[in-house]
Amino acid sequence: MELGLIGLGKMGGNMRERIRRAGHTVVGYDRNPDVSDVESLEALVAALPSPKVVWVMVPAGDPTRETVKALKELLGDGDVIVDGGNSRWTDDKLNAELLSDKGIGFVDCGVSGGVWGLENGYALMAGGDPKNIKVVQPVFDALKPEGEFGWVHAGKVGAGHFSKMVHNGIEYAIMQSYAEGWELLRAVDEVENVTEVFRSWREGTVIRSWLLDLLVAALDDDDALSQIAGYAEDSGEGRWTVEAGIDNAVATPAITAALYARFVSRQDDSPAMKAVAAMRNQFGGHATRTSAPPGGDQG
Amino acid sequence: MELGLIGLGKMGGNMRERIRRAGHTVVGYDRNPDVSDVESLEALVAALPSPKVVWVMVPAGDPTRETVKALKELLGDGDVIVDGGNSRWTDDKLNAELLSDKGIGFVDCGVSGGVWGLENGYALMAGGDPKNIKVVQPVFDALKPEGEFGWVHAGKVGAGHFSKMVHNGIEYAIMQSYAEGWELLRAVDEVENVTEVFRSWREGTVIRSWLLDLLVAALDDDDALSQIAGYAEDSGEGRWTVEAGIDNAVATPAITAALYARFVSRQDDSPAMKAVAAMRNQFGGHATRTSAPPGGDQG
Amino acid sequence: MELGLIGLGKMGGNMRERIRRAGHTVVGYDRNPDVSDVESLEALVAALPSPKVVWVMVPAGDPTRETVKALKELLGDGDVIVDGGNSRWTDDKLNAELLSDKGIGFVDCGVSGGVWGLENGYALMAGGDPKNIKVVQPVFDALKPEGEFGWVHAGKVGAGHFSKMVHNGIEYAIMQSYAEGWELLRAVDEVENVTEVFRSWREGTVIRSWLLDLLVAALDDDDALSQIAGYAEDSGEGRWTVEAGIDNAVATPAITAALYARFVSRQDDSPAMKAVAAMRNQFGGHATRTSAPPGGDQG
Amino acid sequence: MELGLIGLGKMGGNMRERIRRAGHTVVGYDRNPDVSDVESLEALVAALPSPKVVWVMVPAGDPTRETVKALKELLGDGDVIVDGGNSRWTDDKLNAELLSDKGIGFVDCGVSGGVWGLENGYALMAGGDPKNIKVVQPVFDALKPEGEFGWVHAGKVGAGHFSKMVHNGIEYAIMQSYAEGWELLRAVDEVENVTEVFRSWREGTVIRSWLLDLLVAALDDDDALSQIAGYAEDSGEGRWTVEAGIDNAVATPAITAALYARFVSRQDDSPAMKAVAAMRNQFGGHATRTSAPPGGDQG
Repeated sequence: MELGLIGLGKMGGNMRERIRRAGHTVVGYDRNPDVSDVESLEALVAALPSPKVVWVMVPAGDPTRETVKALKELLGDGDVIVDGGNSRWTDDKLNAELLSDKGIGFVDCGVSGGVWGLENGYALMAGGDPKNIKVVQPVFDALKPEGEFGWVHAGKVGAGHFSKMVHNGIEYAIMQSYAEGWELLRAVDEVENVTEVFRSWREGTVIRSWLLDLLVAALDDDDALSQIAGYAEDSGEGRWTVEAGIDNAVATPAITAALYARFVSRQDDSPAMKAVAAMRNQFGGHATRTSAPPGGDQG
Repeated sequence: MELGLIGLGKMGGNMRERIRRAGHTVVGYDRNPDVSDVESLEALVAALPSPKVVWVMVPAGDPTRETVKALKELLGDGDVIVDGGNSRWTDDKLNAELLSDKGIGFVDCGVSGGVWGLENGYALMAGGDPKNIKVVQPVFDALKPEGEFGWVHAGKVGAGHFSKMVHNGIEYAIMQSYAEGWELLRAVDEVENVTEVFRSWREGTVIRSWLLDLLVAALDDDDALSQIAGYAEDSGEGRWTVEAGIDNAVATPAITAALYARFVSRQDDSPAMKAVAAMRNQFGGHATRTSAPPGGDQG
Repeated sequence: MELGLIGLGKMGGNMRERIRRAGHTVVGYDRNPDVSDVESLEALVAALPSPKVVWVMVPAGDPTRETVKALKELLGDGDVIVDGGNSRWTDDKLNAELLSDKGIGFVDCGVSGGVWGLENGYALMAGGDPKNIKVVQPVFDALKPEGEFGWVHAGKVGAGHFSKMVHNGIEYAIMQSYAEGWELLRAVDEVENVTEVFRSWREGTVIRSWLLDLLVAALDDDDALSQIAGYAEDSGEGRWTVEAGIDNAVATPAITAALYARFVSRQDDSPAMKAVAAMRNQFGGHATRTSAPPGGDQG
Repeated sequence: MELGLIGLGKMGGNMRERIRRAGHTVVGYDRNPDVSDVESLEALVAALPSPKVVWVMVPAGDPTRETVKALKELLGDGDVIVDGGNSRWTDDKLNAELLSDKGIGFVDCGVSGGVWGLENGYALMAGGDPKNIKVVQPVFDALKPEGEFGWVHAGKVGAGHFSKMVHNGIEYAIMQSYAEGWELLRAVDEVENVTEVFRSWREGTVIRSWLLDLLVAALDDDDALSQIAGYAEDSGEGRWTVEAGIDNAVATPAITAALYARFVSRQDDSPAMKAVAAMRNQFGGHATRTSAPPGGDQG
């Protein structure tokens, strides 16, 4: 089939390549003319047969929203827009409603795979009406891994990004789980070879996983992770997962712990702990540390 | 080689079988004469050539301690005792010291594998002097999985059980991670097929793992887990992991969250929440629920 | 001064009384004619001299929003609306903007005090322009406690409800703190008189507080809290506090723990714990509990 | 009455003074001859009439244990030793048993009060047999605050230190509660005067407390706490509280959060977060920060 693909960054570019390898035609558009196949959204839409399918792979929020609005002007009844970006799931319903009066279908699709996706395939979680899913199905089949898993029609509009969001929330907590174990193993003298312990877990244990494999790979590069700072960004999905939990009165203590550990990792000095230290000083005459000048030793 | 094996329950019995399949001789002893190869510890020790290697596979705590003490009377210089049970790692040093004056070596070994171990092999984490490890190595080779992983000499005496303990702590937190995601996916109407979402994650995703595979297997049996109560025991290692973290000033918030969720899951009515409700009632005139009689609806 | 007061429920009714006791005139309106001083918003507004000050004390969300919209039609330049309800702080900016084109001032005011407020005064946290605060000041003075504290102009529009929200988040966590201590004290045989221990803490300790006094009062009524179910609602501010933390990358682990404990307290059976139990059953042959029929013993 | 008091540091010295002000005779012993009333334990014991009461106020652990052992040699049937230090409650039973064969009574007493204790009195939580409590009662009466609270006979031997331990665990969590609120209030532009918000809470609110008063005092000294590092020690009782919770399957998530925040506050760079960053880097090509040289900016 023929597909329009908007957004040809690292992720979108690799996806174009994988879809083409599967024998489909991809018309790609990007603001960067060096990677773009066409000069404009109009040219992209004009190049596609009906029903036209356009996959949007641009940053979440305003860029995605603006792209969907622009496409609404160019597409018509029976066409389908797929949002494959990292949109918040609550945006999906708004986009679907925006498009409905022109009869344009909307599918949201969470995409996992990262730098391995081109070769190994992308895990895909889609939401939307079955008739729209069906139109896009050849693209899903091209992108997904070869095995029997990695692709799901999760439910209604929003279900794709919701599932991907929860996937990432789980990912945060699993990473935190291994990280706590690593710190603890390194804390006692008896365990002399922490990397080998982690490596041994790759087979025959309850906790074997791909993330464990990745951690061992990282430890093989740098046994003590001395070249990596204890600093982790968060990308939105972790926050949204915790907030979705709160909205639904679902406790997510492990996922939340993982998110908060990242927040704290980015602080040079914790304001909350300043307050704790100040209170201790007031009631007990506990020694407090004077804030060192920037760069000073605080540990 | 020839091995004495004490404790022939579900775990020990399968291990005896796997070691024998590898061509070694196992003399097993159990208090249950139906499964025991010999009538007594004395008979077991008498049946082994020197250096005698005896693997203890009995419940942690007093039973293991008593067995080690009894073996001390029967063994001598150059012999080796392996504790393959779920002992707390702090017991290992005590056992090693107990045996040292007779020159009996001690190795602690954490064993993972459960009901799959007989066929797939057991993951093994051992601690002890290299010379003692070397004596037992053929047994480790027989028990471990066939691949390149699943076996590690983690460090000094105690390192094996410490590593296994941390493994289990990580396991608690990973299970909690998936569990939170499952509850959240089920909480919104948009996601219509939670089991299929989990199944799709088995390939191409960041969170693919063996525990995920197990959860999908369970969901295939019972999509809503309606036949399973939200109640989980904890077996000691999770508690010890958190306590080891505290002893070493290592924060383990995700593992702790998993442990506490299990504690709470076993309470019909939370005393702490009674106190919260009582305070709310005092200051705000908030309605509190009267405790229902046993069996009454409280949710 | 003269004040219009909309919403005469338990809270609003007591506030009307306290303001009147201070010598001010209050024109109250409520949908319930039995408590209302006037028949309509129009009548309320008509009864006030300029600049007209109207205090809105209705449920947060749509009811408050609709009331503000209706008042916008009736008020004009220089008049001031105060939202004294439990609104989410993000609503305040929207209300202020709505009113700005007619020159109507907006003040948000978080109010704490509950059933003691009539006699002891209400703690007030207000946000808005100083000129609008000044207009309302006599009412604040009437409502606040007699001592030197209990009233603050916290900052810009939104700061009042934000401060009240954080107050409530802190309140959740402090209540949880005492509650955990209570459960723990009751868990060991050595402590024979838990209520007396709590009572003793009321003086001379680091943790003396009004919430502690309340808990002791509750324990004096019912030593084991046997008549109170371990079940706690949450009223919005706790959730908003955690979400505000996430929006600002501020970790709030104690407040979050308190919120999640309430979520879990309202579940008969935890879905997440079902998933944990299901995984344990898969890998270890651990016994799981079959879900009991409604009302059955699960603990 | 006459009391022997061992340990005349900041705490013990003040306690001696307060007991003397109440009209009792105190014979104090300290290794530092400048503050000691007598030259030796022997001299201290010799100076007391029977039944001799000796209050031990030395560091927990070995120093307390050694002092109790030394006193056992010097005391006899009907005498009473009080351990008023910060001992772990599990030590108390051991001390009581040690002394029982000579008929020496043992009382454990948790003491709260800090630098205010001399003037305001000390909150006291005692454990032991009523007959031993009765012998020491005049000293308790001298030390406790003047009001009706601040003193409790909590239960059997160990109950005093257990109650004090839980008191401190609660204290950790309450401090954390305010600290989280402080960090959050400071994180938004709308709240322009955080110190005044906290000050306003001192009256009429649900969260008024002595710790709040202390925090306001600290903020009055240094509005932004810019002279205090976000670094907090923990003194043992917090750890023991969490461990006691684990031993009794009592979840203490807020107290634990407070403890872990202190652990993390003392780390320059979190090993766990290094592991998280390393995993992120492996799967996503996420930029990681290279560890800066000591003193470099990591935030």
